[in-house]
Amino acid sequence: MYELHFAVPMAGAVLCTFNTRHDAAMLSVLLGHSGAKVFFVESQLLDIGRAALTRLADSATSDAGLPVLLTISGDGPDSGDSGCVDYEDLVRDAPSRFDIRWPVDELDPIALNYTSGTTSRPKGVVYNHRGAYLNTIATVLAYDITATPTYLWTVPMFHCNGWNLPWGVAMQGGTNICLRHFTAKVIFDNIVRHGVTHMGGAPTVLNMIINAPAADRKALPGPVRVMTGGAPPPPRVLLAIEELGFVIYQIYGLTETYGPATVCTWIPDWDALPAEERAQLKARQGFHHIAMQDVDVKNSSTMESVPYDGQTVGEVMFRGNTVMSGYYKDVGATKESMTGGWLHSGDLAVRHPDGYIQLKDRAKDIIISGGENISSMEVESVIFNHPAVQETAVVARPDDHWGETPCAFVKLKDGANATEAEIIRFCRERLPHYMAPKTVVFEAELPMTSTGKMQKFVLREKARTMGSLTNSTNCKL
Amino acid sequence: MYELHFAVPMAGAVLCTFNTRHDAAMLSVLLGHSGAKVFFVESQLLDIGRAALTRLADSATSDAGLPVLLTISGDGPDSGDSGCVDYEDLVRDAPSRFDIRWPVDELDPIALNYTSGTTSRPKGVVYNHRGAYLNTIATVLAYDITATPTYLWTVPMFHCNGWNLPWGVAMQGGTNICLRHFTAKVIFDNIVRHGVTHMGGAPTVLNMIINAPAADRKALPGPVRVMTGGAPPPPRVLLAIEELGFVIYQIYGLTETYGPATVCTWIPDWDALPAEERAQLKARQGFHHIAMQDVDVKNSSTMESVPYDGQTVGEVMFRGNTVMSGYYKDVGATKESMTGGWLHSGDLAVRHPDGYIQLKDRAKDIIISGGENISSMEVESVIFNHPAVQETAVVARPDDHWGETPCAFVKLKDGANATEAEIIRFCRERLPHYMAPKTVVFEAELPMTSTGKMQKFVLREKARTMGSLTNSTNCKL
Repeated sequence: MYELHFAVPMAGAVLCTFNTRHDAAMLSVLLGHSGAKVFFVESQLLDIGRAALTRLADSATSDAGLPVLLTISGDGPDSGDSGCVDYEDLVRDAPSRFDIRWPVDELDPIALNYTSGTTSRPKGVVYNHRGAYLNTIATVLAYDITATPTYLWTVPMFHCNGWNLPWGVAMQGGTNICLRHFTAKVIFDNIVRHGVTHMGGAPTVLNMIINAPAADRKALPGPVRVMTGGAPPPPRVLLAIEELGFVIYQIYGLTETYGPATVCTWIPDWDALPAEERAQLKARQGFHHIAMQDVDVKNSSTMESVPYDGQTVGEVMFRGNTVMSGYYKDVGATKESMTGGWLHSGDLAVRHPDGYIQLKDRAKDIIISGGENISSMEVESVIFNHPAVQETAVVARPDDHWGETPCAFVKLKDGANATEAEIIRFCRERLPHYMAPKTVVFEAELPMTSTGKMQKFVLREKARTMGSLTNSTNCKL
Repeated sequence: MYELHFAVPMAGAVLCTFNTRHDAAMLSVLLGHSGAKVFFVESQLLDIGRAALTRLADSATSDAGLPVLLTISGDGPDSGDSGCVDYEDLVRDAPSRFDIRWPVDELDPIALNYTSGTTSRPKGVVYNHRGAYLNTIATVLAYDITATPTYLWTVPMFHCNGWNLPWGVAMQGGTNICLRHFTAKVIFDNIVRHGVTHMGGAPTVLNMIINAPAADRKALPGPVRVMTGGAPPPPRVLLAIEELGFVIYQIYGLTETYGPATVCTWIPDWDALPAEERAQLKARQGFHHIAMQDVDVKNSSTMESVPYDGQTVGEVMFRGNTVMSGYYKDVGATKESMTGGWLHSGDLAVRHPDGYIQLKDRAKDIIISGGENISSMEVESVIFNHPAVQETAVVARPDDHWGETPCAFVKLKDGANATEAEIIRFCRERLPHYMAPKTVVFEAELPMTSTGKMQKFVLREKARTMGSLTNSTNCKL
């Protein structure tokens, strides 16, 4: 996939990478929608790939002809004769000199990225050459990737083209450390073995690292810069990971902004602040990076900017070169997303007096209880501080009296114990009472996407099927 | 001048900065040619500024009206009442809110830069917003300027807009240390006082630093990254400066390429090489940076690329976003400079097997002796290794037999001694005999531009007026 980030655009084609966790049904829909001509499949996934093609052939949308299937057998145990042309053979038999097919216009598409499955209907986000070039540079700069880095991949390359870093690492003459699967142990081992200088990772990856058993850890050979994004990291996670010698860069963006779009620029004076305060500052999403023209927090009805008060919630909106060309074959959704000339993120945030923005919640994740808005993220941040908690997600549960009340799903650390009443008490001691969960559900695993985002729609559905909470009025505000 | 790099473009105007060493005659020509509307003059230079306006009023080209004169009095001893509006008053009395006048098109001009006086007739190079934006980013990246640098200015901001770094340092949230005049002592003092992380400097500045008396030196507080360019640094200078703890980035470009256009990317494996070899590698000009589409070394007649043999000399040519819009009011010169779709640099270079380019000479500085081309730079590199030599420049002297022979102008170190015969012998032991100078002239000072470039046309003229060398045939090849 790394090599194809170069080969496909240089052949004048558009790169469309798929999530390796998709099933055959999803793949056949995306193959049909994208109109893919060539379908590269790793040999481990060949059964799913073939099944997707069979489904596509059976479907009505396949009149454009099926894509050609090519395998990538690599050197894994699954490599074998598939009956298809293999990528490595294709490369070996190709002439060593070729003419690059340059884009005719810099706004020609370079990639088509289907948004990850936190919503049920993926949309195809079109990236153009200009935007990809600029966002690559901006990501490299935002993240202090100086010459000849060693980059450890945990962010999938199918996710916003790996935050543009297949291109960015090459641009800086770097070395790529690619992992098929990873655990905290694998991460530590590779950092030490290869002298990793940079890595990316969703907050769940940071959480995996800080919760690693002592036996799996290793002392870092030097500072490892970690760009985290995909979901706002809880301050407690930031504190713990930096104590291990990692340096965190907090970024924020959407598939629609080529991935990274804002960066929480660190002010050197802040180094002198107490650790708690530093973590609070670092958890903010900051400013737009050098290639994005503007980020703003606006009232989505009036399109007016919210005041710089750290209080007033509005919707995060973007405009500039690193906003997508649009959704493929979906003029309606494209227009809707760009109402008023700004890309609407669907994320709610405040603007602090120093200009930094801070996410409060996804618009659809906000809990409205007795007319008050409750940020699920704020409640989660508090629950994260409970010593027994490894992961948590808070969603709305229907409530006869309040309309909705917070319902917390919690995964406990190995061997740790806590009761529902304990968690609720812990929250009520640290939050306004109306914000504390009324329900706590313990789970062995919480549903995540492959990019480490919590699938809240799954939990919301679970909370809904639990039915309305009654008699919750005894929890007085 | 730093602030005006932002204020002028934000007012929708074009920034045209002048060399502070220009005299009134030159200034009046440039004011007339540029059609300047507002003329900011530092109070120390007010007499020259007024004289230039008087000349302009007297000339035939002033029918467009004289520019408005504003002073920049600062806080120096020369500040006083000039009878003009002062910049600081203008800023103080202006409304704090204003509408930025954005460029209508990204190719709109942002700056007009007259080329420095190594030729007798300056040309006005037009920079556009797109090119300036991209070259700023490329310079920051080429030079490893990570977040919140402390940058020491020795490169004048009137020279290629200070290699784009008024914008680049701001972009990275940096601190600027500005000096009106500097010596090696001033440089060391400021590095230590302010914790300088980055600085720029022509090779003559590096030479000044390495020749500083011990009393003027200070131990560096940390590695200081120095971007050097403007002229290729002799390997000996690179060796000596790195021993002091400076880290050198060798860049190369022209006013016509927004300053920096190539960078000698350092390969970590080279760290293990002997110091001499490292210096040789670092003295090369390298590859085009991330914003320049292409640099090539071509035969200027056939436009064919030279082979990657480190031997065949061709002309360095550029194309891409960071090539100027053109010469202002000079369609002929613009077309000529872009013959064949590439910007012709007038610099001669070779291409090494690893793809790195290396300058051999300015086309007009090459010495043609008995039909052989002699690179003046190669001869200078050797003379630089003589322990008594501080500065040198080699030019062609007319020769009855050979047509031209090398003539070396030499500035000796304080208190050092050497004779002409010694220098010639030193060269003949280290170069093919035909390349060794036939004439050596000792001077107290060599003529430099304010950006540290040797003014070879002055020396060439001097060598010409010395008359033809006769009887030089006894120096057999």
